[in-house]
Amino acid sequence: MTAEIICVGTELLLGNIVNTNAAYLAEQLAGLGMSCFYQTVVGDNRERLLETLDMAAKRSEVIVLSGGLGPTQDDLTKETVAEYCGKKLVMDEASKKMIAEYFAAREMKPTENNWKQAMVPEGSIVFPNHNGTAPGIAVKAKKNHFLLLPGPPEELQLMFEESAIPYLQELSPNIILSQTVKTCGLSESFVEQQLRDLIDQQSNPTIATYAKTGEVHVRVTAKAGTAKDASKLIKPLVKELKARFGNSIYSADEGVTLEKALVDLLQGAGLTISCAESCTGGMLSATIINVPGVSELYKAGFVTYSNKAKRKLLGVKKGTLQKYGAVSKQTAEEMVKGLLMETKTDVGLAVTGIAGPDGGTKEKPVGLVYISCNVKGKVTVKECHFKGTREKIRRASVAAALMLARSCVLEYLSKEILK
Amino acid sequence: MTAEIICVGTELLLGNIVNTNAAYLAEQLAGLGMSCFYQTVVGDNRERLLETLDMAAKRSEVIVLSGGLGPTQDDLTKETVAEYCGKKLVMDEASKKMIAEYFAAREMKPTENNWKQAMVPEGSIVFPNHNGTAPGIAVKAKKNHFLLLPGPPEELQLMFEESAIPYLQELSPNIILSQTVKTCGLSESFVEQQLRDLIDQQSNPTIATYAKTGEVHVRVTAKAGTAKDASKLIKPLVKELKARFGNSIYSADEGVTLEKALVDLLQGAGLTISCAESCTGGMLSATIINVPGVSELYKAGFVTYSNKAKRKLLGVKKGTLQKYGAVSKQTAEEMVKGLLMETKTDVGLAVTGIAGPDGGTKEKPVGLVYISCNVKGKVTVKECHFKGTREKIRRASVAAALMLARSCVLEYLSKEILK
Repeated sequence: MTAEIICVGTELLLGNIVNTNAAYLAEQLAGLGMSCFYQTVVGDNRERLLETLDMAAKRSEVIVLSGGLGPTQDDLTKETVAEYCGKKLVMDEASKKMIAEYFAAREMKPTENNWKQAMVPEGSIVFPNHNGTAPGIAVKAKKNHFLLLPGPPEELQLMFEESAIPYLQELSPNIILSQTVKTCGLSESFVEQQLRDLIDQQSNPTIATYAKTGEVHVRVTAKAGTAKDASKLIKPLVKELKARFGNSIYSADEGVTLEKALVDLLQGAGLTISCAESCTGGMLSATIINVPGVSELYKAGFVTYSNKAKRKLLGVKKGTLQKYGAVSKQTAEEMVKGLLMETKTDVGLAVTGIAGPDGGTKEKPVGLVYISCNVKGKVTVKECHFKGTREKIRRASVAAALMLARSCVLEYLSKEILK
Repeated sequence: MTAEIICVGTELLLGNIVNTNAAYLAEQLAGLGMSCFYQTVVGDNRERLLETLDMAAKRSEVIVLSGGLGPTQDDLTKETVAEYCGKKLVMDEASKKMIAEYFAAREMKPTENNWKQAMVPEGSIVFPNHNGTAPGIAVKAKKNHFLLLPGPPEELQLMFEESAIPYLQELSPNIILSQTVKTCGLSESFVEQQLRDLIDQQSNPTIATYAKTGEVHVRVTAKAGTAKDASKLIKPLVKELKARFGNSIYSADEGVTLEKALVDLLQGAGLTISCAESCTGGMLSATIINVPGVSELYKAGFVTYSNKAKRKLLGVKKGTLQKYGAVSKQTAEEMVKGLLMETKTDVGLAVTGIAGPDGGTKEKPVGLVYISCNVKGKVTVKECHFKGTREKIRRASVAAALMLARSCVLEYLSKEILK
């Protein structure tokens, strides 16, 4: 079954707000097994909306609209859909009652145009709005189903879950399920090449790659009559991916970020961590601390942006800074050694580099970053060369630091097992 | 001049990512004086993209596309636009060289499919990508201009500012100029009320408000034949805004963020700063350090997430933590006092709070955050109550800390002048 999304609103066309409704609806429709090939944004304009409706009706069975159900004159989604379907608007008594109650509960008086919200195309199914005043509507016209939902995300989402999902489930014979396998430290083109044979022969399940900073995600998607059957289709492919990418995979769970995978790894091994940062300036600690419940294992962090702070807080030697510079393998090494001395944690991570835009030289260009990891005295230093803006170099450094910590801890644990 | 936006990507159709590019491009095009009536999202599919291009070309002069310029087989935006325009793809030597350099800098080897990114439709203008490998492209075909931009937002935005804006400005007979006056610490509805009279009578220049975390921006936009004339229209209105909002305005310069305004203020006064963070976990330091050239005045930062770290690194008293808790006015006060003792800077900023999702109680709910600022011994503590996700609460805390530092430093400086 095909579906498409039309979001109505001038504020979207002007870029005043980000269209989170489209992403939400798309994800929901995909989860219901609907194939969604288009999303359109159009303003509160009768002619352009009619044209968009006509195009959508010709190419998709289900058309989900959001926005333009408000009480004001420029809200005209409902009127225009009714016109397109050749249906009259009639008063829905249940909606009228709900609007009256909504205002009474807030000790406010509805104005004349509020009753406009209770008008619905004749023969439509009304979706109650438990987070606002505009009811949602489902209208069937010839082979199309039009679902009209309010624009505010909290109203739209609640209504979608309460009313639209049951309505759409009745229409659709299939379930779509997907699982994401997340790799780090590999390039997208490398991952794709390794998967070439699988991608070439794909039909159901399908396989696709997505690049993030320092990461490549591989998504496996299957369509089946039941969730159980879809899951059965996905499993062998995920197993194959695990065999091909091994330890480069940090998680096969949608909700797990790289920092969460690291925190879980540390937690499982009973290890604590601390950070010392120069060019990332706290971003590495902030990323790790974004994982809820990290307080048991994250002990302390230092932002040693100046040389003085590197010396005073981490005990980096004056001679090292003078001879090799603040951005050097040697300084990175001393930073992470001093860090563990200071914090008495099991794992230490340090970053020193040139994030730019200034401060680069021919020998040490902008983007040169040293990352060091200390696991109970064993120090590993990695030299990285990043490109881009200051922000991008810092983000890439954080991703590289998380990856380095992960691989050093994995190495430590594998040796522990052999002991 | 009319424009429309086409975002290409299966991940958008599946709702895996939110389409922030559409909002960014829409805002930029509006700022350039272009009327934008449609946004479309379509997958990496030749037939559907051709159909979408044809529709867009008939109704808009400028078509801005994002996404589908990657090195993999399913990226086909460039190929499809070239086909639609009836142009061959040719190798762009400058882009080839940039890609080779990009990989060399990372000590990685480009694979065969990376060179595909250096192919461009003949006769097109190439936009260099300073944040990635895919160059952007402008192709003219009959009365349409097609602008092809990469999907990753940091690549798209930098390229838009560097290359697309100058290209589009040449097409437009009018110059649109805008200036943004940035306020902090005021609510959007308050700002709007203060501007009601100006908004009601606006035509050219126009005035609009945008809410950001902790900030409200007021954008004044004028249209004129020359930049000089547009600037003349803007000036008196900006002067009026300054009169109405006074010190709540931290900058009237597009490129100046709140952290940059604070750094400039400190730099002008010759003051140094340091930070101590609990719930923000390094995010405050990272935000300040995102300002280039900050190394002269930012001295050191501590991430004291655990109570032990608060005691050891900042000298917070055990009794204080026991009696009042880690999230309290008293702890915030001791943190910032200890911070200045430790770092010998002029200004210290500390944050302690409950970012959630767990850890809240009835007396101290999630979102309770104490922010303290110490300017040469004078300590100010602010109690804040934020709502939303862990991430949102931490971002709001950082914004509030920057605002507090700004107002404390301004107060200190005004007293210094009176001395």
